[in-house]
Amino acid sequence: MLVIGERINTSRKRVEPGVRSRNEEFLAEEARKQAEGGADYLDVNVATMMAHEPEYMEWAVGVVQRAAELPVCIDSPNPAAMEAALRVHDNSLGRPIVSSTSAEPERYDKIVPLVLKHRCPVIALCMDESGIPQSAADALRIATRLAERLGSDGVPLEDVYLDPLVRPVSTGGHYGPAVLDALRQIKAEIPEAKTVIGLSNVSFGLPVRKWLNRAFMVMCLASGVDAAIIDPCDSALMALISASEALAARDEFCANYLAMHRAGRLEAAE
Amino acid sequence: MLVIGERINTSRKRVEPGVRSRNEEFLAEEARKQAEGGADYLDVNVATMMAHEPEYMEWAVGVVQRAAELPVCIDSPNPAAMEAALRVHDNSLGRPIVSSTSAEPERYDKIVPLVLKHRCPVIALCMDESGIPQSAADALRIATRLAERLGSDGVPLEDVYLDPLVRPVSTGGHYGPAVLDALRQIKAEIPEAKTVIGLSNVSFGLPVRKWLNRAFMVMCLASGVDAAIIDPCDSALMALISASEALAARDEFCANYLAMHRAGRLEAAE
Repeated sequence: MLVIGERINTSRKRVEPGVRSRNEEFLAEEARKQAEGGADYLDVNVATMMAHEPEYMEWAVGVVQRAAELPVCIDSPNPAAMEAALRVHDNSLGRPIVSSTSAEPERYDKIVPLVLKHRCPVIALCMDESGIPQSAADALRIATRLAERLGSDGVPLEDVYLDPLVRPVSTGGHYGPAVLDALRQIKAEIPEAKTVIGLSNVSFGLPVRKWLNRAFMVMCLASGVDAAIIDPCDSALMALISASEALAARDEFCANYLAMHRAGRLEAAE
Repeated sequence: MLVIGERINTSRKRVEPGVRSRNEEFLAEEARKQAEGGADYLDVNVATMMAHEPEYMEWAVGVVQRAAELPVCIDSPNPAAMEAALRVHDNSLGRPIVSSTSAEPERYDKIVPLVLKHRCPVIALCMDESGIPQSAADALRIATRLAERLGSDGVPLEDVYLDPLVRPVSTGGHYGPAVLDALRQIKAEIPEAKTVIGLSNVSFGLPVRKWLNRAFMVMCLASGVDAAIIDPCDSALMALISASEALAARDEFCANYLAMHRAGRLEAAE
């Protein structure tokens, strides 16, 4: 599974001042420790910078890539910030992921041209004009529509990460099973496309969130998710992901699990 | 989910001498700490005592129940030992579970009369004359046959715990998904019956087994399992079970998860 490190996001209280003051050392350390934890991509979201988002984005992408030597998941609601990031992104480290488009016409029309121009993977949220899906059937309907439209517009489906949108179980007990069902149905109906989840929203509003995040990650892996936006510095979460891949027949001969063991990362995890 | 504590089993190296020497203090402590960890039942297996199994079983059930104040899962291949345990079991603490019968004629014919006589729940292994199921379809076929026969012989299906038989993923990458599929199919096709797994076999032959056991427990919970034979002294496993029940819509308003939090058990888990 593709691990997208979630930590560089200015909506997080400890990150905002570091970015606002352009603290390069702070940001580089956040990037490095996520790479060491096992991230494949690093999410960069500086949306709270508002009007200055493009300049902050450009700066942050540069710092993060130099420190972690990883590609970036460019996470912004602002096409100008997205474009600034795409311009400076070091593609020799891997193609960036654009995060995100959706079936909302305005969001689709602004973001997809950038995806086509830069030929990069894109996260497509399963939401439309009527809002966030209430059920797995809703999510599948929107996912199908998005995949059809993106495909016909020229985005290869293997570059499309469909996101069924994780909602807090504290606001509805059925939201957990709905996402798991949506993942399985999307994998079955649109096998060429990929799936992604933003994990930590599931535990919003509940205490000791790490246990909920870890358990939901395992469930999503068993349901076939291809990528997840998570905290790779949670060593227990990373150990559970490795174990889950072995258990879900996604790690032939448990080769990666055994490699994690040899690296001492299963023993050290807590 | 019903938690059946697995620790009192003389095939475990640290337990055998304690039982062989009839060390009451040792056995009582093993029982108490599993109760404190959150066990609903305690498995008692003294099968390595061979010819003396009935006497050891009688002794162990008495010690365990006095120490833990819990009902026992009587785990034996020997009908005489089973009968000895059923005779002394303190049913005021809950009915014992008989572990186990199967679709093998000899095992069925010896064990089911005891189940009927003592009117207690029974674990029914999904295996028959031809051995252990190789696929979910195999497991469902045997489960259906077992449920039909047990039902017609007078065992209420709500007292039947069907066990799809967990096999080590080290011996075949498909064994994990096969059990998850079997659990889902058995729940869908035989909704009156219950399901159970013996967890730790999944990680046999691999290092740092706790991560595999924990991840597979979460997956089985998401697939609807009703009971599991596990180590309740693994506090991280118990925290993940609680989180999984909240995520799988098996804990209304996250009430049990919040109770675990108030008891400090989520914070203390590691």
